[in-house]
Amino acid sequence: MQSPLIKKLIEAFTCLPGVGNKSAQRMAYFLLERNREGGEQLADALVAAMRGVKHCSRCRDFTEDELCGICNSQARDNSLLCVVESPADVFAIESTASFKGKYFVLMGHLSPLDGIGPEDLGLDQLKRLVDEEKPAEIILATNSTVEGEATAHFIAEMLKNNEVVLSRIASGVPLGGELEYIDGGTLMHSLSGRQPYRN
Amino acid sequence: MQSPLIKKLIEAFTCLPGVGNKSAQRMAYFLLERNREGGEQLADALVAAMRGVKHCSRCRDFTEDELCGICNSQARDNSLLCVVESPADVFAIESTASFKGKYFVLMGHLSPLDGIGPEDLGLDQLKRLVDEEKPAEIILATNSTVEGEATAHFIAEMLKNNEVVLSRIASGVPLGGELEYIDGGTLMHSLSGRQPYRN
Repeated sequence: MQSPLIKKLIEAFTCLPGVGNKSAQRMAYFLLERNREGGEQLADALVAAMRGVKHCSRCRDFTEDELCGICNSQARDNSLLCVVESPADVFAIESTASFKGKYFVLMGHLSPLDGIGPEDLGLDQLKRLVDEEKPAEIILATNSTVEGEATAHFIAEMLKNNEVVLSRIASGVPLGGELEYIDGGTLMHSLSGRQPYRN
Repeated sequence: MQSPLIKKLIEAFTCLPGVGNKSAQRMAYFLLERNREGGEQLADALVAAMRGVKHCSRCRDFTEDELCGICNSQARDNSLLCVVESPADVFAIESTASFKGKYFVLMGHLSPLDGIGPEDLGLDQLKRLVDEEKPAEIILATNSTVEGEATAHFIAEMLKNNEVVLSRIASGVPLGGELEYIDGGTLMHSLSGRQPYRN
C-alpha cells in the first residue's frame, strides 16, 4: 500500500534513462527515509536546469547564456571546428584536454525513420557558420554508428564546395583492447586505417 | 565545459542510490535533450513527496494522513501483527497479497555502530501497541541479516512477558533455487527448519 505521493514520485523517477520501476522505488524510499534535503535540492536543481539551460546561438551546445563558454573563449582556435552529435560528446572531448578548437553540436543524428532531417540538426546554421568563419579544418566527430556515419557523409556532401579540409575521427582498436576480442568490423577499419609506425 | 546549472544538476542526481557521476550525467543530458517536461514533473513530485509524506501514527509506515491505509482499514486482521524494517518491506509483502494482518515498521534495524538504538526504531511505541491491541501473534519479519536477526531477538526479549505468540519468517532455499548454488548458511537453515511433507 503506497500513498499517492509516493506512487507519483516512483512513476516520475521512471522517466530517467536506465531507471525501471524497481530502481525508481528504491530511489523514492531512499530519499524519503534518509535524504529529504537531498530530494528537495534535486528538485531545485531540476527546475533551474530545465528552465534555465538554453542552446548557444553559435554552436548549439547547452548554456545558460547567449554564447557558451567555449564559443566565448579567446583562447580557442577558430580555424578548427569539431562537429559532434551531443553536448555529452563535447564534454567527453573536453575531458581529454587535447582539443583546442571550437565545436558545433548537432543535437542528434540524421534518422529519417524518426523524422529527424537536416533542418533538425541545424545543418543550415552549420553551413552559414562555415561560410562566415571559414575554418581551415572540420573534424566530423559524429558517432561510429550507421546513423553517425550517414550524418558525417551528409555534412561532407553539403560542404564539398567550401574550401575546407574535412576529416573524420579514426576508427580502430581502443587503447588496451585485445585483437582477439575486437569485432570484425572494427578490426577491418583498424587495418585499412593503418598509419606509418612512429617510434 | 558544462554550464553551472548542468553541473549542479549532475551533482544533485548523485544523491540517488546507485547513481554515480556517469549515470548522473546521462540523466541530466537525457532530460535536457529529450524530456524537459518530465524533468519538471519529477521536480514537482519530489517536492510534494519530500514535504507531504509523514509517518503513520500507529505503524510508522509512510503516509500523507494521520493513519495509513492499512491501519485505517476495517478489512485487516487486528490479531496479526507483522514487524518489518522498512516501508519497502511492507510494499513487498503487500504485493504477495497473502497477508491480511497489520504492520509495524521499524524504519531501520538495531545498529549500535551507527548509533541506532531501540528508541530510534520506536520499540517503546511497539511495546505500547502490543499492550493495548493485544495481538494474538507477532511475526518478526526483519531481514535475514545479522542486524535483522539481532533486532528480531531484541524485540522477542522485550515482549517475552506479553501473552503473544512470536514467530519468525522462514529462512531457506528460495523458490526456483538449486541446492548446488545455495550458500551453506542458507542450506543449514533450510535443513534445520524442515517441515512435514505435504502433498
